[in-house]
Amino acid sequence: MEELYQCINFLLTVSQHAVFQNLHERLDRFGITPGQYAVLYCLWNKGEITPKEISQAVFLEMSTVSGVLDRMQKKGLIQRVVDPNDRRSVRVAATAEGMALQEGVMRAVEEMNQDVLRDFTPEETQLLRRCLARIGNVSALTSEA
Amino acid sequence: MEELYQCINFLLTVSQHAVFQNLHERLDRFGITPGQYAVLYCLWNKGEITPKEISQAVFLEMSTVSGVLDRMQKKGLIQRVVDPNDRRSVRVAATAEGMALQEGVMRAVEEMNQDVLRDFTPEETQLLRRCLARIGNVSALTSEA
Repeated sequence: MEELYQCINFLLTVSQHAVFQNLHERLDRFGITPGQYAVLYCLWNKGEITPKEISQAVFLEMSTVSGVLDRMQKKGLIQRVVDPNDRRSVRVAATAEGMALQEGVMRAVEEMNQDVLRDFTPEETQLLRRCLARIGNVSALTSEA
Repeated sequence: MEELYQCINFLLTVSQHAVFQNLHERLDRFGITPGQYAVLYCLWNKGEITPKEISQAVFLEMSTVSGVLDRMQKKGLIQRVVDPNDRRSVRVAATAEGMALQEGVMRAVEEMNQDVLRDFTPEETQLLRRCLARIGNVSALTSEA
């Protein structure tokens, strides 16, 4: 099975699944998913922004972001604000409830990172992050932002 | 957005998505998905095996494997063989059509790996694979097999 276990798609799929489950369980007590965490992180750091800006910042398609926002609005974590001067322009903001999650959620995410990366040296961790960012084209978009 | 872009779950999710799409497009002309490739790889290398053995080898849950096998059977790529001495025991084998894909598919997978990893040195590639295998617990299962 050597070639399959060396295949970068196989390795990324299996490791992503394990890490996603790890974070999913840690975020469960806050009532949010890893995708919802990414959207909240955006709102905590950028304030009121458009769905398109969220989509670009978290690397999700607009249709996916719309669904995530619907579920977060139902849970009272975000609100959609319509610009009174341009009714087609919608902006998204975290509610007080969404803001209140920041400290606990950031600690849970930090603990997940430490848990997943505990076996690696700082140099290995840095190289791993750099490789993944290059593969996912994250650095290119980071420098544009 | 620095902390989000350093989060190992975010980096794995974005890079996995990019690589999965890359392989998905390359396998499209063979009429198979990346998951179906993993199952075929198993059958090419292990011959006739049980769905449970496939599940363990490709790190997919049994319910997922069943669905993948159903779709592959409809396409004529695999067949399910019932043991005449134990009618509850089902084994899976690639059909002639499934066997015929091996050379072309393996070349497409190799090309995807070269494409994705083209910017990295052999040392970086080796470390990346080793980190992902440890995170996904692939090496543990490899050594058991």
